[in-house]
Amino acid sequence: MITVTEDMPAREAARVLAGQDLPGLIVVDGKGRPVTVLVGTQVLRMAMPSYCLDDPALARVIDEAAADVILKGIGDRTVADLLPRDRRELPAVSPRATLLEVAAVMARSATPLVAVVDEHRVMTGAITLDGLLDRILLT
Amino acid sequence: MITVTEDMPAREAARVLAGQDLPGLIVVDGKGRPVTVLVGTQVLRMAMPSYCLDDPALARVIDEAAADVILKGIGDRTVADLLPRDRRELPAVSPRATLLEVAAVMARSATPLVAVVDEHRVMTGAITLDGLLDRILLT
Repeated sequence: MITVTEDMPAREAARVLAGQDLPGLIVVDGKGRPVTVLVGTQVLRMAMPSYCLDDPALARVIDEAAADVILKGIGDRTVADLLPRDRRELPAVSPRATLLEVAAVMARSATPLVAVVDEHRVMTGAITLDGLLDRILLT
Repeated sequence: MITVTEDMPAREAARVLAGQDLPGLIVVDGKGRPVTVLVGTQVLRMAMPSYCLDDPALARVIDEAAADVILKGIGDRTVADLLPRDRRELPAVSPRATLLEVAAVMARSATPLVAVVDEHRVMTGAITLDGLLDRILLT
């Protein structure tokens, strides 16, 4: 699963992300239309105590398991709550996009995960940077 | 291999990146000390023609294989030439860093790849976001 919904508990989304080797998750609305891409470091950022972000060395003094701190940091928030206010441009392409077009969208959005959407903006697939580079440079 | 050197041809670095499922490459100097982390979308960004970055749909009209355009875009530049002028803070931790400290460094730098360095700043290993999340949330 590469998609999560905005109303999903953020803890569950973090576990979905941890459970697979993907650079991020695509957040979709109730109609299956991608809203934004959530990359893994954003999830960590929302979960970490702010003093750890200011000075990561301070994380060393926390005498608590990392999972507990992060899950407590996420708390009962939903995926929608984790999304940054200034959302990135949605990286999405049509099923007819060329490899070069996908590369341009990834480069422009600085996001290694792009949604493929049909003419109704409903998600029909996804392309990762790894998958794209494999296709472009290894074939 | 997760490291490249600054004097390596950038085309070769792109192929190294394509050849493995890693979120980026760690650029090291001649003494094996990490200089910066190069993420995959940065490589694409440096290689793409600028009009494609401005409007990815224009990539569709290019009647040339994506590999040719990207490799031509990289040209004879070295890895050093690809590095952005305003380098990100180097995401690095000591071998004694806690999981939470690594998470804080990743969140702060927004980079899903962190170098592990010894007391002489020589790289001894690397941690990916996937690996970190596996350790934190799946155990």
